[in-house]
Amino acid sequence: MKKFKFEVLYKSKKSGARVGKISTPHGDIDTPNFVAVGTNGTLKALDNKTVDSIGLQLMFCNTYHLILQPGSEVVRDAGGLHKFINRDKPIITDSGGFQVFSLAYGSVENELKSKGLKRNDGTVIKINEEGVLFRSYRDGKKVLLTPETSVIAQKNLGADIIIPLDELTPYHIAPDKLKKSLDRTHRWEKRSLEEHLKNPNNQAMYAVLHGGIYDDLRNESCKILTSLPFDGFAIGGSLGKNREEMVKMLALLMPKLPEDKPNHLLGIGDLKSLEACIPLGIDTFDSSYPTRAARHGVLLTREGFLRIAKSSNSQNFCPIEKNCTCSTCQKFSLAYIHHLFKAKELVGLTLATIHNLHFMVELMKNYRNKILQNQI
Amino acid sequence: MKKFKFEVLYKSKKSGARVGKISTPHGDIDTPNFVAVGTNGTLKALDNKTVDSIGLQLMFCNTYHLILQPGSEVVRDAGGLHKFINRDKPIITDSGGFQVFSLAYGSVENELKSKGLKRNDGTVIKINEEGVLFRSYRDGKKVLLTPETSVIAQKNLGADIIIPLDELTPYHIAPDKLKKSLDRTHRWEKRSLEEHLKNPNNQAMYAVLHGGIYDDLRNESCKILTSLPFDGFAIGGSLGKNREEMVKMLALLMPKLPEDKPNHLLGIGDLKSLEACIPLGIDTFDSSYPTRAARHGVLLTREGFLRIAKSSNSQNFCPIEKNCTCSTCQKFSLAYIHHLFKAKELVGLTLATIHNLHFMVELMKNYRNKILQNQI
Repeated sequence: MKKFKFEVLYKSKKSGARVGKISTPHGDIDTPNFVAVGTNGTLKALDNKTVDSIGLQLMFCNTYHLILQPGSEVVRDAGGLHKFINRDKPIITDSGGFQVFSLAYGSVENELKSKGLKRNDGTVIKINEEGVLFRSYRDGKKVLLTPETSVIAQKNLGADIIIPLDELTPYHIAPDKLKKSLDRTHRWEKRSLEEHLKNPNNQAMYAVLHGGIYDDLRNESCKILTSLPFDGFAIGGSLGKNREEMVKMLALLMPKLPEDKPNHLLGIGDLKSLEACIPLGIDTFDSSYPTRAARHGVLLTREGFLRIAKSSNSQNFCPIEKNCTCSTCQKFSLAYIHHLFKAKELVGLTLATIHNLHFMVELMKNYRNKILQNQI
Repeated sequence: MKKFKFEVLYKSKKSGARVGKISTPHGDIDTPNFVAVGTNGTLKALDNKTVDSIGLQLMFCNTYHLILQPGSEVVRDAGGLHKFINRDKPIITDSGGFQVFSLAYGSVENELKSKGLKRNDGTVIKINEEGVLFRSYRDGKKVLLTPETSVIAQKNLGADIIIPLDELTPYHIAPDKLKKSLDRTHRWEKRSLEEHLKNPNNQAMYAVLHGGIYDDLRNESCKILTSLPFDGFAIGGSLGKNREEMVKMLALLMPKLPEDKPNHLLGIGDLKSLEACIPLGIDTFDSSYPTRAARHGVLLTREGFLRIAKSSNSQNFCPIEKNCTCSTCQKFSLAYIHHLFKAKELVGLTLATIHNLHFMVELMKNYRNKILQNQI
């Protein structure tokens, strides 16, 4: 079985952008690349064999959801996540921490809109040195997530790349509280790594760098975590209240990451952020944006967003995008997909998702080509 | 272009069952066969190319829905329904009448449960000799459906088989009212046929036999309609309050239908009805039952119904059905599909629908083989 390996194949002469290749036991990931989110072991509205045919190289599954349904032991008994969901290409899982905290705090956006509202809706019961006790969103049962239980669950799932437990803090947090959380997160990540190394199981573990938008804290997080034998580095925690803050933070942080290890930007994958972050040297991006946009009738095209519900599409018998090679554009017209959305047919969601995912796969190929030509 | 043609290939020595072949401009339909319902120009949760790959020979689309969305003119401008929905196999459309009336009256079942409730919720505004004026369920606009407008809409859609306008009466109707409705339905069907024959357009038209569960009225309907140059005969109207009433009615009616023309039982396709009606000589059956059952997690197997949500499936890593050749059973386990339903993933509906549709296609093949061997 192939081992985890990362090679930088080319560094742009124009920016920090780079082209690389991550090898995993289930195949290669060309970087930079987009990682689609298949929370429950499937992309929404697409079966995993269709996802293969579109050429998605890495899928992100959420440990939080999978431990609550079907349970990581069921997946283990099925022979691991790849067998359970019938995907023989690379998978990455997270620790579960992000969902526990984000379900409790909400997004930065919602947080900014509702300052002063309580930030914990009761799903997080207790956070202490051991880990986090939360209530299942499915049945209200209490679940204890610790660095060790998260890693054991991720061993059961058996993804190619796994992630240590961290604490997600709200955007609005006092600096002293953030520092305390950061220190604990580092201890949790170290414990996660130790648990992982007891049985590496051919999996790679990426650390998650924290520190919010504070350069000194990001530096500290980078220094501590890069001194440990992680296989790659994800950038997590609060990425700021807007793209500008995120890009500013990344511009300072990226040069400090080890060049010979892959990095990943957590939860970001909108088109403008990709454009802004690829020149900074980000290797992989995960986001549910392109698939969620599809289900909301927003189609990605080289000429911008196309809103499928617009009545001007009702008699357009051309494909969504001329020359697009996705199976949706090869088979069906804009007018028909418009009709499916108007008639609330589930197939419309599937066809739109195929197009958007194909768009992302092609977009990332183009980015890699542009880097190789020093155009980025 | 191939013309509409029907051949009886074999008549069972054991019953009224027969094996035949309907030829249409878009291909052949082996009979007896199951006709899946793609109301809006798609089966729910399955794209039309997947439907092709499963081997469905005839799809039923609903004129009522298609005239309200996207409008029959849009479909005409797309080059007809086959092009618009990208299906190059046979399609049948109905007149729109059934939906207008059934949305107003509800099903027989609901009618039996709620005797005394008003039977018209206001969607049917007026019925007279000209036709029926109803309110669109989409935008409340008034729409006039007449024999002529229905046929013109069906010319725009361009299905291989079309149906004349008829009036659906409630199960509970006074015999004199039923007789009046029946007479008008016959006049409507004659007008529909006349409109159709102005421009046959390589389409076939099946009459719809009415008369409820009254033998004399069914006989009359049969006599009048079989004297007209229809290409086939559908059995519609109220089919009784249960399977027993329906089978009794069909046993008397079927011998009176012309042997050399195809017949169709409207809206019936559950497994027990197929078993009871195939020996009576029914050629085709349409029903949304197998696809709707799939979306409700009821999977059809040779060993009976399998309810996917049952917790006993949660760790069953075998396919839904051993030796099933459908793409769902080839790729995914019962446990995974159970998980998808539990996690409310749309893909679960698609995978279940593929299995049930494949089951129906295979079931009908088996029925045809059994007839050829005089086992039915």
